[in-house]
Amino acid sequence: MKCRRCRGPAVIDIRRHNAAFCRDCFLRHCREQVKRAIKDHEMIVPGDRVLVAVSGGKDSLALWDLLAELEIEADGLYLGLGIGDYSDESGRHARDFAVARGRRLIEVDLREEYGFDVPVAAAATRRAPCGACGLSKRHLFNDVALREGYDAIATGHNLDDEAAVLLGNVLRWETGYLGRQAPVLPNAPGFVRKIKPLVRLGEREMAAYCVLTGIDYQVDECPMAQGNRHLGLKEVLDALEERSAGAKAAFLFGFYDRGREHFLEEAAAERGDLRPCPECGSPTTSELCAFCTLRDRATGENVPVHLRRAPVGD
Amino acid sequence: MKCRRCRGPAVIDIRRHNAAFCRDCFLRHCREQVKRAIKDHEMIVPGDRVLVAVSGGKDSLALWDLLAELEIEADGLYLGLGIGDYSDESGRHARDFAVARGRRLIEVDLREEYGFDVPVAAAATRRAPCGACGLSKRHLFNDVALREGYDAIATGHNLDDEAAVLLGNVLRWETGYLGRQAPVLPNAPGFVRKIKPLVRLGEREMAAYCVLTGIDYQVDECPMAQGNRHLGLKEVLDALEERSAGAKAAFLFGFYDRGREHFLEEAAAERGDLRPCPECGSPTTSELCAFCTLRDRATGENVPVHLRRAPVGD
Repeated sequence: MKCRRCRGPAVIDIRRHNAAFCRDCFLRHCREQVKRAIKDHEMIVPGDRVLVAVSGGKDSLALWDLLAELEIEADGLYLGLGIGDYSDESGRHARDFAVARGRRLIEVDLREEYGFDVPVAAAATRRAPCGACGLSKRHLFNDVALREGYDAIATGHNLDDEAAVLLGNVLRWETGYLGRQAPVLPNAPGFVRKIKPLVRLGEREMAAYCVLTGIDYQVDECPMAQGNRHLGLKEVLDALEERSAGAKAAFLFGFYDRGREHFLEEAAAERGDLRPCPECGSPTTSELCAFCTLRDRATGENVPVHLRRAPVGD
Repeated sequence: MKCRRCRGPAVIDIRRHNAAFCRDCFLRHCREQVKRAIKDHEMIVPGDRVLVAVSGGKDSLALWDLLAELEIEADGLYLGLGIGDYSDESGRHARDFAVARGRRLIEVDLREEYGFDVPVAAAATRRAPCGACGLSKRHLFNDVALREGYDAIATGHNLDDEAAVLLGNVLRWETGYLGRQAPVLPNAPGFVRKIKPLVRLGEREMAAYCVLTGIDYQVDECPMAQGNRHLGLKEVLDALEERSAGAKAAFLFGFYDRGREHFLEEAAAERGDLRPCPECGSPTTSELCAFCTLRDRATGENVPVHLRRAPVGD
């Protein structure tokens, strides 16, 4: 197996590109794919300050590394979710990476700053923990980025992640979600731009990137996400990819090119009128934003009756 | 395992309905599902004469039987495709069924009436045989129905078939096909209405229907369809159904309810202006319709240069 670019001995093959690469050409390939995603979807303009949502896993650490390699100003944000040893170890990976590379890592601990963590929130809402976790992350990434004046929030969602979410949305014809699933969500009043620079790179490529660059990352899946539907959808997509290399990328990029436009109106119509949350100021369509509702519920605070609403997820 | 309706011993369970049925209640369930599909999608109005596209397989024979059980006037049309022993045996099943039940079966033999068959067409076009076969079937079903004055053409596409086609169209974001994938295609000048009354019944239910009513059908898959993409897509959908009963039906019916509407404009725009084919009179957007082009190519006829076009499928 020879490297497609330099003809040296290859260390990895990528079936959907019908190509194999040596270490250096593979790292270059990863940078090129990120560069192309950024350009194609107008994710970042020169001078932008980017905040990377760092979990300590392979995707977010590789993303942080790749943005720096492309000379994009990128700091990290790590959220302490309080998921036992898993969170302790994840935080350690994030911190070690930041220290080793001399990067700025902002840390927010859910329990210290808001009085609850993900397991407590899940128990209080009697819902799957992934819902409370995702909601908290979206809120806090946006909140910190706004306060610290970042131009964009970059998340490590890769091709496999996005294709699995897309398949889930399509299987249930969640037309509103389909209209909002994009590699870039532009900024809007109260919302910082969200970007996904890894959409052109797969799960396996991100793991290889970390191994080949010596990035030490959290290998375990989150213990609270076990049985998560997306893991099943990934298996299904892997089976399709096995049968026909490139099927996954064709599905995701075909959606960006030709599918998503059909659902934009519906997504806009669903959005409703936004107003500031009376507790935190975040834009919301409800009386109290979803994060403050979750926090009040998880911390058992005595919420004034006129502000009470149904539990998150209802 | 007890029958949900009569509490007698059940012979089949249907996970997505969370139900089991005895023989008689299962046959009733099948009739009810067909009745509901016909009503929900306005497939047939009283007095309609229906032409059933009969292949000799389980779906088309069960469909023919079910329509008669529902007292809908339905004759059969069998096309001789010339696929060796497979076609001979399929024709025998169709004829035996018609004779045993005293039904009218119209037969059209591709080779006798048009001078070619599916293997010859596939060789001549150097394309997968399923393309030439599907094209011929669509053309001849419509042609015979028009000539004989039928109000609708009913095909035996079941829930599994339609979900697999839908998944294929979604994976490649074939937005024009998505707009045209429907349980009913209404009639239009030169086109007889097409209906799929089995969309609410799965593959396994149709096989059980035939076994329980003593319908003897062609069990083999078409030898020319081996490696057909849809078979792979069905496996993928079966895996999803295994994980979550009802996933397949939710995918297909969710598309009918909420998905398809987003692609109608595109499908209409793609259609183009129709005019009669100079050779057979069928509506076409080309100089010569796709069937006549295929026939000329397969029979090696000397097509006038000004009417020649690229091979089918280009």
